[in-house]
Amino acid sequence: MRIGDQWYRTIWPSDDGSAVEIIDQTLLPHTFELRSLRTVEDAAEAVSSMRVRGAPLIGATAAYGLALALRSDSSDGSLESAAHALAETRPTAVNLRWALEKVKRAVGPLSPQDRADEAWACAALICDEDVEICRRIGAHGLARLREVAHRKEGATVNILTHCNAGWLATVDWGTALAPIYMAHDAGIAVHVWVDETRPRNQGAALTSYELAEHGVPHTLIVDNAGGHLMQHGMVDLCIVGTDRTTAAGDVANKIGTYLKALAAHDNGVAFYVALPSTTIDWTLRDGLAEIPIEERAPEEVTVIAGRTENGEVTKVEIAPSGCRAGNWAFDVTPARLVTGLITECGVCDASIEGLVGLFPERG
Amino acid sequence: MRIGDQWYRTIWPSDDGSAVEIIDQTLLPHTFELRSLRTVEDAAEAVSSMRVRGAPLIGATAAYGLALALRSDSSDGSLESAAHALAETRPTAVNLRWALEKVKRAVGPLSPQDRADEAWACAALICDEDVEICRRIGAHGLARLREVAHRKEGATVNILTHCNAGWLATVDWGTALAPIYMAHDAGIAVHVWVDETRPRNQGAALTSYELAEHGVPHTLIVDNAGGHLMQHGMVDLCIVGTDRTTAAGDVANKIGTYLKALAAHDNGVAFYVALPSTTIDWTLRDGLAEIPIEERAPEEVTVIAGRTENGEVTKVEIAPSGCRAGNWAFDVTPARLVTGLITECGVCDASIEGLVGLFPERG
Repeated sequence: MRIGDQWYRTIWPSDDGSAVEIIDQTLLPHTFELRSLRTVEDAAEAVSSMRVRGAPLIGATAAYGLALALRSDSSDGSLESAAHALAETRPTAVNLRWALEKVKRAVGPLSPQDRADEAWACAALICDEDVEICRRIGAHGLARLREVAHRKEGATVNILTHCNAGWLATVDWGTALAPIYMAHDAGIAVHVWVDETRPRNQGAALTSYELAEHGVPHTLIVDNAGGHLMQHGMVDLCIVGTDRTTAAGDVANKIGTYLKALAAHDNGVAFYVALPSTTIDWTLRDGLAEIPIEERAPEEVTVIAGRTENGEVTKVEIAPSGCRAGNWAFDVTPARLVTGLITECGVCDASIEGLVGLFPERG
Repeated sequence: MRIGDQWYRTIWPSDDGSAVEIIDQTLLPHTFELRSLRTVEDAAEAVSSMRVRGAPLIGATAAYGLALALRSDSSDGSLESAAHALAETRPTAVNLRWALEKVKRAVGPLSPQDRADEAWACAALICDEDVEICRRIGAHGLARLREVAHRKEGATVNILTHCNAGWLATVDWGTALAPIYMAHDAGIAVHVWVDETRPRNQGAALTSYELAEHGVPHTLIVDNAGGHLMQHGMVDLCIVGTDRTTAAGDVANKIGTYLKALAAHDNGVAFYVALPSTTIDWTLRDGLAEIPIEERAPEEVTVIAGRTENGEVTKVEIAPSGCRAGNWAFDVTPARLVTGLITECGVCDASIEGLVGLFPERG
């Protein structure tokens, strides 16, 4: 995707092949800085501290992390302990585990000396596949956006999104934002309401940034505002991403997603969730009971980073000193509130029947 | 109410009677600083810039503002233009208009030389009445909290609140927080989930501060988190305030209130709104169509104030430079989502019948 005049993926091997390059997303939107991951510890730290985030991208990073581990020690023990350490970095997104399993299956049968190269190739393939999957999600979502634009007779289509499920959350294109980029590029008038997405402000910091770089009209709002906008007919549809979707269509996504789904349902606004099928956890039925919800440091709530008038980036505390805070990173939106799941294989109902219809091999 | 060892109201005449003293709430929680209002312009600025906020407190401040205007010019023209200027400072809360009308009715029939003293006395009376009204709201709400505590057999009662409807929003006691203070003082175990309440963070800055000063256990959360907590049985009831309530029980309150009411309804959690009857706009039926919603500066969304590591308070920008933002200050929660209205005359259904039952003179 475009940053200024240059095209980027969010993760790629360094020119000399010794490291993996990422964009440090904790510094956006104020500073665009690359970072090299040279060890499995680097990769795990990048995921846990959210230098890279977004379900598909943390899957890709974990795959490269495993390859880096095997470069320094390609034994069975190293493979297992690296995979375990990487899996523990973020508990909610299932892509992380999926990617690790994929690499393990590819390299497990090989002799140790062949494992590192195979893992590296496998990680690269995961990245390429993710780009293609997101492109297809975009194409399926675009068809829905065309329908809405047609119904509105060309008037601007207003889309609300929560958190960042754009190209920064994937290797390229994004999930929820892919249809929006494609609609914009196809000349459909779109405008995006960007939930700022406290506490880490991925909407303000990442989604606004992406949309601005691509030239898509958008307006930043606080997370509290979406209900009001939907009550007043200012949102045509919502599209969000997901970190784990159950076989029955329950959707874990960034905390606050459930509140927007409730408001959409209450106001007859379509609520779509865009996802690669690797995000589906076919072993689960009841998202509320079964999906583990990550709790993160309270400082993410009480301290915020921003740019001062002098252009310096600094952290400020916004609560009384010593104030206790709770920080759940995700919530679960029940399938009954989801209009449709936009996958690389098409759009379906958020239900067992809908998902098995698209993925019959899981029936 | 208590700050450290001292008891305060939020507004009071200066010792020499020449000014009105307020706590500058834009500086909390980092700095506790008083500010003298000496002119009607001072009063209007304090309201519009939210140095004082909260429906009851802006009513009291407007009343004193009118008295200050009459001190410098007690003509009919001055009375009208000052009342008009004060009424324009905040469009949503109805207490502002109610207080101005009350003072105008009291002083209008008097000769100009008697007006200023009468207006001053009338403003003081509005303050005293507000304290008594809030005390009674607290007592009626306390009865509900006792019931919940009894049902929970003494286990901690978890209450979620949005924005600040505490003593800082009134002259003393608060509306939504009054029952909580009384329950705490009565030895009932309560714990408050404090929505931070973006964009101005009244939850983090004011509610957390108040509760800490009074010693009430509480946890700060982002506005996105309440739905998740309710899904998991971690909230026993919600209590919020309101800036304008229709005769049919629709409730305008700080943006985001509607989302919490939806989540409460979806999870069978009681959702109470605490209000002095002066907040009821008996002329309105349909809150969504009829209550004007204030739009404020986009910088309230993109720029945030906090305390650096050095203890200095500074503002930081949290969005990309030039990012467009929308900033609606309130939303409307339909009566169907409200379990009950807690007023100074008792608790009633959020309906015409409920309200007329408590206020038969309005029937």
